Amino acid sequence: MSIETTRTVRWSDDGVVLLDQTALPAEERYVTCDTPERVARAIATLEVRGAPAIGVAGAMGVALAALRSPAADVLGLLADVDDAARDIVATRPTAVNLAWAVDRVLDAARAAAGDGPDAVRQAAVRTAQWLADDDLARCRAIGDAGAPLFEGVDQVLTHCNAGALATVGYGTALGVIRSAHRVNPDLHVWVDETRPVLQGARITAYELARDGIANTVIADGVAASLMAGGRVAAAVVGADRIAANGDVANKIGTYSVAVNCHHHGLPFYVAAPLSTIDLDTATGADIVVEERDPDEVRRYREQLLTPAGAAVHNPAFDVTPAELVTAIITEVGVLRPPYGPAIRDAFDAAGADRD
Amino acid sequence: MSIETTRTVRWSDDGVVLLDQTALPAEERYVTCDTPERVARAIATLEVRGAPAIGVAGAMGVALAALRSPAADVLGLLADVDDAARDIVATRPTAVNLAWAVDRVLDAARAAAGDGPDAVRQAAVRTAQWLADDDLARCRAIGDAGAPLFEGVDQVLTHCNAGALATVGYGTALGVIRSAHRVNPDLHVWVDETRPVLQGARITAYELARDGIANTVIADGVAASLMAGGRVAAAVVGADRIAANGDVANKIGTYSVAVNCHHHGLPFYVAAPLSTIDLDTATGADIVVEERDPDEVRRYREQLLTPAGAAVHNPAFDVTPAELVTAIITEVGVLRPPYGPAIRDAFDAAGADRD
Repeated sequence: MSIETTRTVRWSDDGVVLLDQTALPAEERYVTCDTPERVARAIATLEVRGAPAIGVAGAMGVALAALRSPAADVLGLLADVDDAARDIVATRPTAVNLAWAVDRVLDAARAAAGDGPDAVRQAAVRTAQWLADDDLARCRAIGDAGAPLFEGVDQVLTHCNAGALATVGYGTALGVIRSAHRVNPDLHVWVDETRPVLQGARITAYELARDGIANTVIADGVAASLMAGGRVAAAVVGADRIAANGDVANKIGTYSVAVNCHHHGLPFYVAAPLSTIDLDTATGADIVVEERDPDEVRRYREQLLTPAGAAVHNPAFDVTPAELVTAIITEVGVLRPPYGPAIRDAFDAAGADRD
Repeated sequence: MSIETTRTVRWSDDGVVLLDQTALPAEERYVTCDTPERVARAIATLEVRGAPAIGVAGAMGVALAALRSPAADVLGLLADVDDAARDIVATRPTAVNLAWAVDRVLDAARAAAGDGPDAVRQAAVRTAQWLADDDLARCRAIGDAGAPLFEGVDQVLTHCNAGALATVGYGTALGVIRSAHRVNPDLHVWVDETRPVLQGARITAYELARDGIANTVIADGVAASLMAGGRVAAAVVGADRIAANGDVANKIGTYSVAVNCHHHGLPFYVAAPLSTIDLDTATGADIVVEERDPDEVRRYREQLLTPAGAAVHNPAFDVTPAELVTAIITEVGVLRPPYGPAIRDAFDAAGADRD
């Protein structure tokens, strides 16, 4: 049973079923969150991670609040749902997808208010499930749009985890790899371990192995020499946010991959749904890079990796300028430079259906 | 008491005193190796590391064998010394410096044979001590040759540990940083943690902090974005081996630093004694890159970082082509491209006194 079919985030009669990513790679453990509070805790503790997966998990948490609320009247029910939504969004206040997905469930619940409490509950659950289906469909569309770029490519490199485990299923960058692998079963993936949190080593390697896609984990500093040796034909990564000019914010280390691709004349692809493109962010210079806990660099679990109290700079992500991005692979097709007009055209074509 | 004065490898009446690098950064522990066998074990278990430091420790181990041998006649004494030398060299058969330094002690011991056992013992001890002094002097000369390159440089980046803890003291790349810091106390060092073995995080950060040099540890993937942000003015690294054309083999990840320096228009310096330059290696293409234990990537101590049994590519080092190297800083001065003639001139000037 592959992740592609089991899904990272799934609705069940008992609650929201999540693959606990904090237990990977040592253990493959599913948790069932049977209350909205338990969903909030799963988001806060990174049992579920990746912007799309968090959004859907949060939406399902709100639906669960509707289902579990003892309120007999619509007003009491909507109040309970609002409370749960506020608590869930507060776990990751900067996660745009989370707030957006939770709002979709709240909108649907309110729209059904005239039809009574049961209609509100059904609308909330149906919307959360639809969001999951929609995320999966978008990832498959990204994968299928990107696969033709990898014709004749046997060696691809990826950074971090933009996979099934960051989405409801299938993934963005790894969705492209999955679709390309279906065409070319010889495709082999170099997996940057992705310090400091090791999402590549822990999660991408796990996810690819489960799908039977050949992969090899490398320290992040190895990629350049593989490229020099002709052992990488292309790189594909996900994105945290894409500016209106095509600058890409993604996991720290991504920019170095892009520079090395440029130096070695290799294509550098970014795979992401249109919802990742923020038209209100003109360029990468407008993106504030969050500084994360220095202990991510200083320690691995209880082991000290640096002198105690060593000064550490631990930015969450970096910004790759648009001129180093060969193409942006979206659910509505492959965007090419100049990205400003390409992005505007893509939003027009999609009818901006996420805004 | 700084490392610069205490020395990483030191001769004492009780034996060879080493700073145990396997205990860093958690603990600062000196071990006294009172037999040649204990010195061999220290080399094998990486209690002492870094080509120059290993060479001197091995030479002192052989001197210790001479001192401890119960033989009353010269022939018996030389046989004991030869046995110890063979065992010590066998701990790291590919370490050129180790074999070279041990041979110097053997040569001195044999040359003194005509003067009796006591003369042999004294010659062995004196030669080992001289090798330590010589290594330190070369590092100081490298540091002083390189310092003028860093005038006006406040932010320098280094990779791995080419420091006092890889040599008898002072270091090569970190020797340059020490000398530059003496001129400019505001100098700040970005320390690549240097996956997989984390010599930067564990050892370089420790050594710089001990000397009061401001430093900040970063994951290896952070360097590129610091350069893009104008927060790095130059990089300086050591070398495992330098080919006759100036291609540089050094710790894995070095090449990516060089590519990123090139992309951002920053100088990339290599600091190394002439003994690191192998005239029998025409270019970097002739250097075979050793593949190290995959568990260095798969595990940190008992913790699993990847799925169990994940495929791993773990090259010990990479090769930076000469065209990305701004200058090679040696004990006889700063070499500039084209390196072929510059290296030949440097060897001529030095009288090839290490061969």
